[in-house]
Amino acid sequence: MRILLYRGDGQIEPWARDFAAALPHAETVAWEEGASTPWGPYDYAVLWSPCPALLDTLAQVKAVFLMGAGVDAILKFGDLLPPVPLIRLGDAGMAEQMAEYVAHAVLRYYRRFDEHEQQARQGIWRPLPPRDKSAFTVGVLGMGKLGMPVLRTLRQLGFPVRGWSRTPKDAPGVDCYAGMAALDDFLAGTRVLVSMLPLTPQTNNLLDRARLARLPQGAYLINVARGAQVAEPDLLALIRAGHLAGATLDVFRNEPLPAPHPFWGEPRISITPHIAALTIREEAVRQIAAKIALLERGETVADLVDRNRGY
Amino acid sequence: MRILLYRGDGQIEPWARDFAAALPHAETVAWEEGASTPWGPYDYAVLWSPCPALLDTLAQVKAVFLMGAGVDAILKFGDLLPPVPLIRLGDAGMAEQMAEYVAHAVLRYYRRFDEHEQQARQGIWRPLPPRDKSAFTVGVLGMGKLGMPVLRTLRQLGFPVRGWSRTPKDAPGVDCYAGMAALDDFLAGTRVLVSMLPLTPQTNNLLDRARLARLPQGAYLINVARGAQVAEPDLLALIRAGHLAGATLDVFRNEPLPAPHPFWGEPRISITPHIAALTIREEAVRQIAAKIALLERGETVADLVDRNRGY
Repeated sequence: MRILLYRGDGQIEPWARDFAAALPHAETVAWEEGASTPWGPYDYAVLWSPCPALLDTLAQVKAVFLMGAGVDAILKFGDLLPPVPLIRLGDAGMAEQMAEYVAHAVLRYYRRFDEHEQQARQGIWRPLPPRDKSAFTVGVLGMGKLGMPVLRTLRQLGFPVRGWSRTPKDAPGVDCYAGMAALDDFLAGTRVLVSMLPLTPQTNNLLDRARLARLPQGAYLINVARGAQVAEPDLLALIRAGHLAGATLDVFRNEPLPAPHPFWGEPRISITPHIAALTIREEAVRQIAAKIALLERGETVADLVDRNRGY
Repeated sequence: MRILLYRGDGQIEPWARDFAAALPHAETVAWEEGASTPWGPYDYAVLWSPCPALLDTLAQVKAVFLMGAGVDAILKFGDLLPPVPLIRLGDAGMAEQMAEYVAHAVLRYYRRFDEHEQQARQGIWRPLPPRDKSAFTVGVLGMGKLGMPVLRTLRQLGFPVRGWSRTPKDAPGVDCYAGMAALDDFLAGTRVLVSMLPLTPQTNNLLDRARLARLPQGAYLINVARGAQVAEPDLLALIRAGHLAGATLDVFRNEPLPAPHPFWGEPRISITPHIAALTIREEAVRQIAAKIALLERGETVADLVDRNRGY
C-alpha cells in the first residue's frame, strides 16, 4: 500500500515519521513542492492545504484524508478532485481546545477583564459594575462536532446559550434556531456571537454589515472558524461606530494577518494567530491509520465530507 | 425587632432599603460613622468591615451577621465582640463568580493568551507551542464552599486538579492533601496555585519565599482570598528571578493597592481591584432575613463562624 503525504506548510517531516510508525506495512511518501517524487499510483492521500500541482497524483487513490477539520482548502478544487471519499479529521482534541478558547474570551468580556486590565496598566484601581449574567447570552453559529462541546462548556459556566444551524438541531439547555430565515432573530438576542461554521459559498461573508448590525448594541464577536465569513471592513466600522464592543479573532481572510491590516491597531480587537484549535498530530495519525484499516477491510468510516453541502 | 446595619465602605443605603423591604416588621437602623444614631439596644447587627466605634452598640444583640464570606475583618476585634453567634454569608452567588475568575486566569496562562496578546500589541503573528494539559496541574488551597466549586469547574475544563485543606477532605477527581505537613508536596506538583483560604493567624504570610519557591519553575499564582496570605516582596522577587512565570491577584495586603506599589509596574502581575466575587445584595439580604426568621423561631442556622478556628 502506498500513501502520499503532503502539507502546504512544509511541516511534513514529523507527520511522515508518525505515519511510518503507525502503518509499518505501507510505503509512505512525503511529497514537497518542487521536489522530485516517485509519482503515483497511490492508494491513499493524506493532505493539508493541498496545492494544484498535487492534484495529478491523486488519480488512482481510494480516498483522500484531510489533516484537519476544515475542508474549504481542498473543496475549492471542485471537479479537479478525484471522485473518491474525502474524509476530514474527526474530533482529535480540537473540540476541547475550542471550548477553552471560547470560554476564555466569553469570561473575559462578561467579567470585563479586558477593561480592568486596561485600567491596571494605567495604575487605576476602580471596580467596574458587574453585568447581568442572565442577559449575557452567548450565541454559537454552527452546532456540529465543535459547536456542541462549546455550547456545553458555556452552559456549565452558567451562561444562557443559543445555537444556530443550517438544519434543525436539538441540544439540552440550548435555545435552537435553524435556517437563514431564523438568523436575524438569533442575532438580535445574542450578546456574544461565536462563529464555528464551516466555510462554504453560503457562509462566505455571512457576517456582513447588515447581519452584524442585528446584534444588540455592545455585543461582541468571537471568530474561531474561518476569516472569510466576516466582512472585515464592516466589522471594523461597527466597532469604531460603537455598535459592537469588541471582537476576538483567531482567523482572518488572509493569514498571517498582513502587517498593514487595520485590525492590528484597533485595541478592541484581540488577535490570535490561528491557534484556537491545533491538530494534535499523534491523535490525528492514530485516527487516520485506523480509518485506512477500516477502508481496507471494506468497511465504512465516519467524517465523510459531503461535497454538495460543502463540509 | 431592631436591626443595626453598617458598612465600612459607606454604601449602606441600598442595603437599608432592601432590608426594610425584606423585614417589614423590623426597625432597621443604618448607622454611618460620625452620624448621630439611635443607640441600642439592637436585636441583630448586620455588618461589613465594622469599625471599633460600633462595638459598644452590639452589647445586647442576639447575633451578628456579616455581609460577606470573609470574617477576618470582624474577628480581629477578638474579645471585644459580644459572645453571640457570628454568622457569615453562605454562598450568595460568590462561588460561581470565583469559578469564573479562576477559570479565566487558568485558561489565560495555559493557552498563553497573555503572551499572544503581548505579541499582538507589537503586530507579531507567531503561534506559540501548545502546552501539555496533563502536566498543567492546578492546585487549590482551601476546599470549602468556594474552593470546591472552583475545583469542579477546573475539572470540567479538563485540568488535572489537586486540593489542600487544613483537615482531610475528599472530592471526586481531586488529588487531596491535608495539613501543614503535606503542604510542600502539594506545592511541588502544582503548576498554577490558587488561594481560596480564609485569612487567619495560620494563613497570614503562608505564601512566603520558602513556600512559593516549592512551586515548580514556571508556576503561576492566583490569589482571590486575602492579600495578607502572600509575602508580597517575596512573590515579586521570585517573579523577577524567573522562578514564577506570573501572578493574577485580586487581593492585596493594603487595598486599594497603593499607587507606589511595585506590583503596578510588573507586567507579569495582573491586578484586579477585589472583584473576583462580589456579594450579590439581593441574595445576601434574602439569606440574612431568612436566618433571622429561623433564629426568632429558636431554630439553628448554617454558616456559623468558629472563632477558635478563625473562619
